[in-house]
Amino acid sequence: MTEDALPLIGLMLGDCTGIGPEVAVKAMASGAVNDRARVVIAGDVRVLEQGMRDANLRFEYDVYTTLDDVTWPRLTVPVVDLGNLDPDQLERGKVSPESGRVCGDTLKHMIGLAASGALDILCYASLNKAALHRGGGHFPDEAHMFADFAGHDGLFGEMNVIPEFSTFRVTSHVALRDVPDMITPDRLTAVVRLADRTLRSMGKRPARLGVAALNPHAGEQGLFGDEEIRIIRPAVERLQAEGIHVAGPIPSDTIFLRAKRGEFDGVVMMYHDQGQIATKLLSFGKGVTVHVGMPVTLTTPAHGTAFDIVGQGIADPGGMEYALRLAARLADRAAPSA
Amino acid sequence: MTEDALPLIGLMLGDCTGIGPEVAVKAMASGAVNDRARVVIAGDVRVLEQGMRDANLRFEYDVYTTLDDVTWPRLTVPVVDLGNLDPDQLERGKVSPESGRVCGDTLKHMIGLAASGALDILCYASLNKAALHRGGGHFPDEAHMFADFAGHDGLFGEMNVIPEFSTFRVTSHVALRDVPDMITPDRLTAVVRLADRTLRSMGKRPARLGVAALNPHAGEQGLFGDEEIRIIRPAVERLQAEGIHVAGPIPSDTIFLRAKRGEFDGVVMMYHDQGQIATKLLSFGKGVTVHVGMPVTLTTPAHGTAFDIVGQGIADPGGMEYALRLAARLADRAAPSA
Repeated sequence: MTEDALPLIGLMLGDCTGIGPEVAVKAMASGAVNDRARVVIAGDVRVLEQGMRDANLRFEYDVYTTLDDVTWPRLTVPVVDLGNLDPDQLERGKVSPESGRVCGDTLKHMIGLAASGALDILCYASLNKAALHRGGGHFPDEAHMFADFAGHDGLFGEMNVIPEFSTFRVTSHVALRDVPDMITPDRLTAVVRLADRTLRSMGKRPARLGVAALNPHAGEQGLFGDEEIRIIRPAVERLQAEGIHVAGPIPSDTIFLRAKRGEFDGVVMMYHDQGQIATKLLSFGKGVTVHVGMPVTLTTPAHGTAFDIVGQGIADPGGMEYALRLAARLADRAAPSA
Repeated sequence: MTEDALPLIGLMLGDCTGIGPEVAVKAMASGAVNDRARVVIAGDVRVLEQGMRDANLRFEYDVYTTLDDVTWPRLTVPVVDLGNLDPDQLERGKVSPESGRVCGDTLKHMIGLAASGALDILCYASLNKAALHRGGGHFPDEAHMFADFAGHDGLFGEMNVIPEFSTFRVTSHVALRDVPDMITPDRLTAVVRLADRTLRSMGKRPARLGVAALNPHAGEQGLFGDEEIRIIRPAVERLQAEGIHVAGPIPSDTIFLRAKRGEFDGVVMMYHDQGQIATKLLSFGKGVTVHVGMPVTLTTPAHGTAFDIVGQGIADPGGMEYALRLAARLADRAAPSA
């Protein structure tokens, strides 16, 4: 395979008030995606330099004004300098509306490039929700922001990936009180199909899926809650009839154990904390979040901006390396099955 | 300390169609509670013999008709033979209404002995919910059955104990849909006080407690769900003012990590699966359930009757040993602080 046949990842350095630039530099310097993908960094070159100082590591790069000017094959990392943020003007370790605004602008630019086919997939270091919000991005979460930037109206979702398995959410950032009524056959079916498609694009064929129950003990035959009987089981049976390898509903206090032991590649969970409790316990700091279902796929480490350790050079790049490797894998396989 | 000053545990062998008698014999033969407690077994001596055959282990015992006849100190294990069940008449590895009925009768008898002060605490091997139900015990769960047997009207609860920490439930076997309205200041306050009292009786002074949030990200300042603002935080602040060492509300995808790292002795969870996902992932097969808040305290391994491996001699007694040791500890310390 020649290098220019490798997928092209657009890397965004994250919020520069946090550990994003540091872990991005460490992950690039580690060679996490060498020979598996090409990487182009977009953002302000001064933020990249800050990351190199934080990481106390350097790699060779060349600066371009637009992605069109970048040529392949090449030995250095290309940086498309948007010249939109001087990190020295911002206080480290604090929420910055200005940084939040620029993060949004940079990602909007990159999503445009990916939507046009100039980038195959995006990977970004940690953002700060409060900064995005105060910077003017009035979206409930990053996923809604990306969908807006991509002009995407259909279903989209967050996938949480740890080495043992991946999770997919039927509901996410909503009050627990609102969850039961959002578990509809249409929504559940769409999420299972999205999970199946995504995992197959990662090489899991068949993708072995488990669907979590909503109620404790899966409702104990309707004794406490009947969503399993009315909605989840019938939907799972219809999906099985379509040929999807899916089991459930399975009580949520055993499904993650079974997935951990290798029985499932993916777990479809009914609400945010059901899966997050499990994946954070199993793999804190190493997990990756993937935004799927849109024309543009994005990966990011599951950890945050870690303001408490900014600039100390001690941030663990494990999640970032995994996010880059996963982007390479998703981009490489997604193309033929899209 | 002379032997007859040691706490007296009443041990019930569990449902004889499952692995209960086998793990009970193994745990007793391991000397799990030697020098920490005295143990008297109540039930049918033929079930004990079956357990010894399953475990391929023996210990010396003497049979009595009533607990009053048992004298201390002694070198053998006393068995109060209720003569109420011949296990050879039942099929192994299957739900037996007859066995379920007798399990209920035996526990009722033992709870009576404990309520009268003749036993300090009870420990039982795995029961089968379906057998209890078909045997005529029409209770939503074991906890309600025990409360009924004990004639207890007040608050009671299940505590789940793993080596790292314990969990306490504000709600348990109810539909997820019904959970938010059950999170009331009174209920939450009562459960935190019960958790504090129980952990202190286990020697945790102060008991360091964390209260889980109900909504994802603890509601993100009311963005999705306001129970944290309206109910949980004010209740925690009142409890702190009383001198209880309690923190919260803490998002449920981080509270168990913090507890695992040693920050909390106990986690108060809002709904069943919140804690069960965490404790089963961390400690499957080794956890212990404790019924607290009633005049009689009961401990039991968190695993089930494991019908698939009955009679093979391969059942892991780890949970049962831990349940016996915990009973010894709870009985030893509970008395002065009751």
